Amino acid sequence: MKMFKSDNTSGVHPIILDAIIKANEGYAHAYGEDETTEKAEKMIRELLGCDADVFFVTTGTAANVIGLSGLLRSYEGIVAADTAHINVDECGAMEKYAGNKIIHVRDNEGKISLDDIVPQLEVMGDEHSVQPKVISISQTTEMGTLYTVEEIKALADFAHKNDMLLHVDGARIANAVEALGTTLKEMITDTGVDLLSFGGTKNGMMMGEAIVSLNKQFGKGYLFHRKQGMQLVSKMRYISAQFIAYMENDLWIENARNSNQMGKYLAQRISEQEGVSLFAPVDTNMVFAYMDKGLIDYLLKDFKFYVTDPSAGQVRFVTSFDITKEDVNEFVDHIIKYNNM
Amino acid sequence: MKMFKSDNTSGVHPIILDAIIKANEGYAHAYGEDETTEKAEKMIRELLGCDADVFFVTTGTAANVIGLSGLLRSYEGIVAADTAHINVDECGAMEKYAGNKIIHVRDNEGKISLDDIVPQLEVMGDEHSVQPKVISISQTTEMGTLYTVEEIKALADFAHKNDMLLHVDGARIANAVEALGTTLKEMITDTGVDLLSFGGTKNGMMMGEAIVSLNKQFGKGYLFHRKQGMQLVSKMRYISAQFIAYMENDLWIENARNSNQMGKYLAQRISEQEGVSLFAPVDTNMVFAYMDKGLIDYLLKDFKFYVTDPSAGQVRFVTSFDITKEDVNEFVDHIIKYNNM
Amino acid sequence: MKMFKSDNTSGVHPIILDAIIKANEGYAHAYGEDETTEKAEKMIRELLGCDADVFFVTTGTAANVIGLSGLLRSYEGIVAADTAHINVDECGAMEKYAGNKIIHVRDNEGKISLDDIVPQLEVMGDEHSVQPKVISISQTTEMGTLYTVEEIKALADFAHKNDMLLHVDGARIANAVEALGTTLKEMITDTGVDLLSFGGTKNGMMMGEAIVSLNKQFGKGYLFHRKQGMQLVSKMRYISAQFIAYMENDLWIENARNSNQMGKYLAQRISEQEGVSLFAPVDTNMVFAYMDKGLIDYLLKDFKFYVTDPSAGQVRFVTSFDITKEDVNEFVDHIIKYNNM
Amino acid sequence: MKMFKSDNTSGVHPIILDAIIKANEGYAHAYGEDETTEKAEKMIRELLGCDADVFFVTTGTAANVIGLSGLLRSYEGIVAADTAHINVDECGAMEKYAGNKIIHVRDNEGKISLDDIVPQLEVMGDEHSVQPKVISISQTTEMGTLYTVEEIKALADFAHKNDMLLHVDGARIANAVEALGTTLKEMITDTGVDLLSFGGTKNGMMMGEAIVSLNKQFGKGYLFHRKQGMQLVSKMRYISAQFIAYMENDLWIENARNSNQMGKYLAQRISEQEGVSLFAPVDTNMVFAYMDKGLIDYLLKDFKFYVTDPSAGQVRFVTSFDITKEDVNEFVDHIIKYNNM
Repeated sequence: MKMFKSDNTSGVHPIILDAIIKANEGYAHAYGEDETTEKAEKMIRELLGCDADVFFVTTGTAANVIGLSGLLRSYEGIVAADTAHINVDECGAMEKYAGNKIIHVRDNEGKISLDDIVPQLEVMGDEHSVQPKVISISQTTEMGTLYTVEEIKALADFAHKNDMLLHVDGARIANAVEALGTTLKEMITDTGVDLLSFGGTKNGMMMGEAIVSLNKQFGKGYLFHRKQGMQLVSKMRYISAQFIAYMENDLWIENARNSNQMGKYLAQRISEQEGVSLFAPVDTNMVFAYMDKGLIDYLLKDFKFYVTDPSAGQVRFVTSFDITKEDVNEFVDHIIKYNNM
Repeated sequence: MKMFKSDNTSGVHPIILDAIIKANEGYAHAYGEDETTEKAEKMIRELLGCDADVFFVTTGTAANVIGLSGLLRSYEGIVAADTAHINVDECGAMEKYAGNKIIHVRDNEGKISLDDIVPQLEVMGDEHSVQPKVISISQTTEMGTLYTVEEIKALADFAHKNDMLLHVDGARIANAVEALGTTLKEMITDTGVDLLSFGGTKNGMMMGEAIVSLNKQFGKGYLFHRKQGMQLVSKMRYISAQFIAYMENDLWIENARNSNQMGKYLAQRISEQEGVSLFAPVDTNMVFAYMDKGLIDYLLKDFKFYVTDPSAGQVRFVTSFDITKEDVNEFVDHIIKYNNM
Repeated sequence: MKMFKSDNTSGVHPIILDAIIKANEGYAHAYGEDETTEKAEKMIRELLGCDADVFFVTTGTAANVIGLSGLLRSYEGIVAADTAHINVDECGAMEKYAGNKIIHVRDNEGKISLDDIVPQLEVMGDEHSVQPKVISISQTTEMGTLYTVEEIKALADFAHKNDMLLHVDGARIANAVEALGTTLKEMITDTGVDLLSFGGTKNGMMMGEAIVSLNKQFGKGYLFHRKQGMQLVSKMRYISAQFIAYMENDLWIENARNSNQMGKYLAQRISEQEGVSLFAPVDTNMVFAYMDKGLIDYLLKDFKFYVTDPSAGQVRFVTSFDITKEDVNEFVDHIIKYNNM
Repeated sequence: MKMFKSDNTSGVHPIILDAIIKANEGYAHAYGEDETTEKAEKMIRELLGCDADVFFVTTGTAANVIGLSGLLRSYEGIVAADTAHINVDECGAMEKYAGNKIIHVRDNEGKISLDDIVPQLEVMGDEHSVQPKVISISQTTEMGTLYTVEEIKALADFAHKNDMLLHVDGARIANAVEALGTTLKEMITDTGVDLLSFGGTKNGMMMGEAIVSLNKQFGKGYLFHRKQGMQLVSKMRYISAQFIAYMENDLWIENARNSNQMGKYLAQRISEQEGVSLFAPVDTNMVFAYMDKGLIDYLLKDFKFYVTDPSAGQVRFVTSFDITKEDVNEFVDHIIKYNNM
């Protein structure tokens, strides 16, 4: 049964699985010194239109934490949203591994603004305070909302003016690029992002994320940071092959298009039902809503999704790359059935 | 072309690849809450004949470092061989991630003995010194040699008598179990090992290692340590499926049998050639030898292997699960050809 | 000139300085194995009426961070006020040294309540979230306010019921004990506090804080944690001698009595002046107020104090152990003078 | 009774104690923003003849570990002697606080040479290995021996040629400067040392060490590193005042002259006795010797010193700034008495 719990409950796109199978030919140099990895890294650089340094890892947490750790001295901190994945969903990996403090600010539907960030800079130069050094945003945000390309550029410009850096947690960057009808180059390279966590797992890959360092000052160190961060996979070709298939023929955009469309379709359909109200705008493949508690209990018998706030009846649905209208309709039919009981 | 560089330059065993393909059916709970993972963990417990806690990760370094970090308070240290993987091949991950010191002692062909360990305990109770808490050995060792089951038991007994613990880095544990004609239960559980890094990648898997905690005092914490250690893979079923295929029908032992046999065959064949002398006993699939430098240069044109000490002409060969006699013969033919030139 | 900037801008109480001078006789064992240290530790145990483990260090940050680190596994976190010293005034020492996350909750005039803490426990058992393990409060709080003995007991009871621990940052604990007319035993031991940072520097000592571990489960480890935390002073007798003089004849309470009285006197006097309004209740020796900006600028010419929020005209005054009514009057005279200009 | 256990069992030089007493006048800005601290820092710069950045801390371990941590990225390591204080006497503080690996090499009577260091550089560029970045030596060494000024310069030159840095653990730097008849400028600044731990405690101060950063690239960060390292003492004037008295009128050299002379006198006297043989050259105030075990036991009844290797009968004596010929003679008389029994 398909789930709306997260886009990592779905499987692997057949084209990507096929690429893994094809990668299983003969021997290859380990630790990323193989040709498949070279090609995959090159394709990411081409997507970005710049000479970025690319390092594959196996989890989004690793991409975020190892990536950020490479930008920071120990007394420097990361300004991020209260709801940021690095702040609340990574079991304190940032603090443990890197030792850096996350200076979290209140977000508005997942987004932070310069108004939130500016007051954090008052401590600059005060040795009693962690020094803000990186602004980290999630695109799409943890609420499924989006920063516009202009907003990202404004954050990057602000960061650089203040001797800071900008990181984008792109676990769902494909959904953002697709929804905004832009390109990775326009959204990331041209805006001046310094570091990108480029996610693949949530959008049809089996396993694969990339630390993408666009700021040449930091690129070289990641070779060591990744190994020290316990993320240097020996048979790397099997990750690289996934990335190649993911980017070839814009499969990553196609997958995101479906999950985005289904997210909006789901939002539209459930919002028409009694006992359901949307909680936030649905820009991509995440749908937050309030539901009657009886309805929630009823639906949980047959479907899997997160109840993000049980007392308020807040729930979250995420649509995957292979969710269909039929899947959504089946779910909505259950709501209708409940409402008619 | 096949390589003798390491057993991670080979690919994935077809049965294991097939298991990955079969795992790609429908949706599954993420983060290891799926049935495939449950089954794989259970099979490891059955192999061990005890109620161990099992946590899959993606690299051997992660299995070692996260595993060890769960056993230690910050002022406690790990006694290990000079040549231990955690000491020289993991880019300081132990020190960085866990913050614990590795107290390394000289090894004899990869092995440490109680004679090496006992003097390290003199600092017990002295606050100026890191307190030895874990003895960590590699089985097979980094030299491809083996601890006997009795030696492991003696180390475990000694550790426990001194309020210490025993860890086994089992990146190549299959080769050890096969070579000694014993079982995982006899070698690990019955001897009293507290923590095992159970490797799969080097023996025909695509990617997969396990933190196996046999000491119930520490088991529960690893759920969090793994996530905090950036190693909680979301689509875990694809790792778990590999482990199931790996253990079913003793594929892991079969794979190790071939690589061990080919290691010995390679050792025997090259030791008969002029300009080659073995450096250490060949118990498993690693062959260390001295070679004339002209020969080394000649062979490197067509084959890949490590020159572990260029000035001394020391080289290392590792045979994989799918190396054949023909592969070895082809290599030896090159040595003969060189000697006849 | 005397300052109202902080109670560490004042010097050393003459009796304490005298004790330092007297300690300079002959040789003594280093690293705390001397008789002076033994006596000082014993006196703290007597004050507490229990068999606490006591470890002297040189800064309050060290007492907090090393103390807390001894209670926590890496994936466990500390629930503390937004304004907690460990959260905003220690340059991220907790995250850097211990690697533990501070889960900060909004405070009310420096105090946190169970209502703030309870929601943080929802993540218990969820591997994606840092697990709350210690509640840390400051007594007196960073706002100079106080938890009652009953409130501390309620926090300790709640902590223990939830398998958690209670830490008290007592950089100004003397002011709290004096202001509440209670004893250290009643406030700390009898309520069930697990760990106390017992401050001396801010109340007339030259330099000296103590990690006081009341929970015997953790006591032994601090011997090593302190050394590893770079805080094992070799000539410790000079710190211990200060503590002895500090506690003998209740000097610590006397000093606090004066600073508390002067805090209240200052609060009363300035609150009567035009252009000044108190911001928070004045329970001890810290006075927060709003002042006209012109007045602030005028006073800063002759006096030192913190402008905690320049745009709002918020200022902070702290009165030391040796501030006199004349000092306060002189300051108030300046306000009056300004108001009459 | 005077001890030969370590030079931190002696007290505070009267001139230094007097400076502390005099510093106790009125109020002063906290955290090192006072005039006394400014003056002390300036005096150290003058001794060095360069614009070094100076940061006072309270322990030698803190000076070493915080100092070194400021030079290193997490994957970089420190090459140091097996016997280095940072390696064996600081309870793993370097690994815990900074997370950096110490790459220790065998020393010869406390000293390491380029022959020891060069082989460690073979791993440069290999992501599996910690990258050597800092060479750390102790001057005087842990054996009381000395690097010549030329040897230090050779180490610094080698380091810089290899994009590395040189650190000197100068817990006993005064003894070295005095014994070699040179100046701090010649030994440290002119040779190109990048970082110095400038010790005071072991040479007549109560408590005080300094992180001295001679390489302007790193200077600024230490303001934050010190606070984050829990070493920002609030009433810093009392440390700074000690340093001023220590340097004024060359008191530090005078103190070292006495301890050095008494070290040599002790060495000469005991080496003439039966049952005693010196173990290493005595260049400064540390004397290592072998003694008959009966003699050791006899002496320990009345004197305190370290038995560094009980089975071999190896002992260590350290002479303090205020040891006299009479003290030494008294000790030697006991040896003579034992030999005559």
